[in-house]
This record gives sequence, structure tokens and C-alpha cells, in this order.
Amino acid sequence: TSRPVKKANYGNRGKSLEDDINDSNEYYLANGVAVIHKKPTPIQIVDVHYPKRSAAVIKEAYFKQASTTDYNGVYNGNYIDFEAKETQNPTSFPLKNFHEHQIRHMEAVTKQGGISFVLLKFSPVDEIFLMDSQCLSGFWERMLQGGRKSITKEEVEAHSSYIPLGFQPRIDYIKVIDEIIRVSK
Amino acid sequence: TSRPVKKANYGNRGKSLEDDINDSNEYYLANGVAVIHKKPTPIQIVDVHYPKRSAAVIKEAYFKQASTTDYNGVYNGNYIDFEAKETQNPTSFPLKNFHEHQIRHMEAVTKQGGISFVLLKFSPVDEIFLMDSQCLSGFWERMLQGGRKSITKEEVEAHSSYIPLGFQPRIDYIKVIDEIIRVSK
Ligand SMILES: [Mg+2]
Ligand SMILES: [Mg+2]
Repeated sequence: TSRPVKKANYGNRGKSLEDDINDSNEYYLANGVAVIHKKPTPIQIVDVHYPKRSAAVIKEAYFKQASTTDYNGVYNGNYIDFEAKETQNPTSFPLKNFHEHQIRHMEAVTKQGGISFVLLKFSPVDEIFLMDSQCLSGFWERMLQGGRKSITKEEVEAHSSYIPLGFQPRIDYIKVIDEIIRVSK
Repeated sequence: TSRPVKKANYGNRGKSLEDDINDSNEYYLANGVAVIHKKPTPIQIVDVHYPKRSAAVIKEAYFKQASTTDYNGVYNGNYIDFEAKETQNPTSFPLKNFHEHQIRHMEAVTKQGGISFVLLKFSPVDEIFLMDSQCLSGFWERMLQGGRKSITKEEVEAHSSYIPLGFQPRIDYIKVIDEIIRVSK
């Protein structure tokens, strides 16, 4: 009997990294594994109408740049904080996907004893990697000092943990965190 | 020389609990004490316009009920998660200020080894208390079983830590957390 390996893979095309992470977080929450949520998108509200007998309507608002990261929460007593990014580039991960204040936020989290990382997805090949934020900071500093503005795929492979796509949870990043905690002890 | 004790107190009238907490969190962040942020208000976006040469404008959106709490972050390796509420009632704290899913969220956080609590402010007397979420859950269950729909001021005083308003930080809740951590060890 043939195994539908490719089929399962293709079935995911079109599903964003964020959707898969949200599904995984729901799975973790429902099973008492971890409590991790996506933060709401920050919005600058300018004008709100209050119609009688119905809900307030926001009539004018703008997207604000996030000052921190996409996700945070708690796993087994550990503070978890991460950003998820995908690229259409198959050979390198552009650093313009990140903002200076996100890098500084992740550094502050690490200093407070939290676990901070990024989930990087190379969308053309459906590959997801977990890179520790201290490692990301290293590549960021290289850029600031005039070096390349991206992390090559080879560098990502060498300095991250590959997370194979699964069924449930879809992206089992907690498994990698277990390893990070184990090694740090 | 007279000390302007009352003046400092009056000077705060009109400043919301949220403003004071945000200021305190900024102080904690700037001084490397803790990394704790307010989550953005959750918004359901219905219509967005993309004008040429200028930023996207949200033309129709609605406020969504928060599924978790107002604030979270990390302090000295501990996951911190809390909700802030104020009441104009001088003698009791109405439980209608909370939602079922917020109570369940705080319970899930506690199960994961996080530190979860509420900051309760009696605005008429400018008094702020930190109540552990497990204690709040107890009063919540009493209500669900037909008991009173509020926590009396005496109960709050007996089961919480009073946080005197200070200068910097304005609301030094980390000091109470230190005590919680010390006792739990
Ligand atoms: Mg993202
Ligand atoms: Mg609140």
C-alpha cells in the first residue's frame, strides 16, 4: 500500500504558518499542555460611533507596528515568547521581516529568564525551523555591522531545530522547547 | 515642614488604573526589572481600504470580548498574567467585572505554573489590592452556586495584598509577587 506522504503535504498549501500555529496552540490548550495565545493586532483607533441599541462601530482606525512579538504564554512554569515569520525565498531568510524593537524585546525576555525564539518558515518548501532569539540576535548584529541582510538556508539549518509538520499538533514546537529546557539545566 | 501626603494622592484623581499600571510596566522595563505588556484590544475587522500612497484605513470594525487577560509577561523566570479592574463601588467588588473565560484562563495559567492574579481598585477611596486568581475563583464559584455576586471590601482586605500608591513605580505589584514567590517555595 502506498502512503499518501505528499498528499498530506500538499493539503497544507495555502494554510498560513499563523493558522498552523494557532491550531497547535488550541491543541496544547485543550490538552492541558501549554497556555499560549496570539496577541491581538495592535490598532490605533481614531473614530468610534455609538449607535443606539447596537454595538459600537469603529469607523476609522489604523494598523500600528507591534512593539513585541506575535505569541506568548506559559508552558510548565516557563515563560514562552515568540515571533512567526514566513518567506517565499527558498534559499535565505530576509532579516527585514523583523524589527529592531522585536529583537530588543526578545533580548529583554531572555534576560528575565524567559524562553524566546522565532519560528521561520520557508514556504516554497514547507519547512519550518525554530531558532533561538540569541542566535537571531547574532545574525541581526552581523547585519548592523554591514554584513548580509539575510540568513542563508544553510545557516538556518545549522543553527535551528527543524520541526517536521505533523497531524496533531500541526507544528509541535513544544517538543523542541523541552529539549531547550533539558539542555539548559 | 508639612508633608504633602494628601496632595500626591489627589494628584492621581482622574488617572485610570490602567494608566498607572502601564506607567509601572514602563518603569519595570526601563530598569530591567520585568518585561510585562498590556495586550492590544481585540478587534474584529470588517472593512479595510487601501488608498494609494497612504496607509491602510480600517473603515469598519468592532470590539471583541477578550478571551484572556489584560497583561502578561515575564519576571525573573516567572510567567506573570493578570487582569486589572476598577469599581466605583466603595464597599464591594462586583463580579460582573469578570468573564467566565477569563476565570478559566487564569486557572489554566496557574495549572501551568504561572503566577496569575487580579489588581482590584476601589476608585472612590483610591485603594488597590492584588488578589491571587485561585482566591478569585473561590468567590466566583460561590456566585455560581447561588451566593453573592460580589466580593465585600472586608473579604478583599482579608484575602488580598494592599498595594500602596507610590511614586516610581506607581503601583509596585512586583513587590507583592516577590512575596508570593517566597512563600510558594
Ligand atoms: Mg508574525
Ligand atoms: Mg481590565
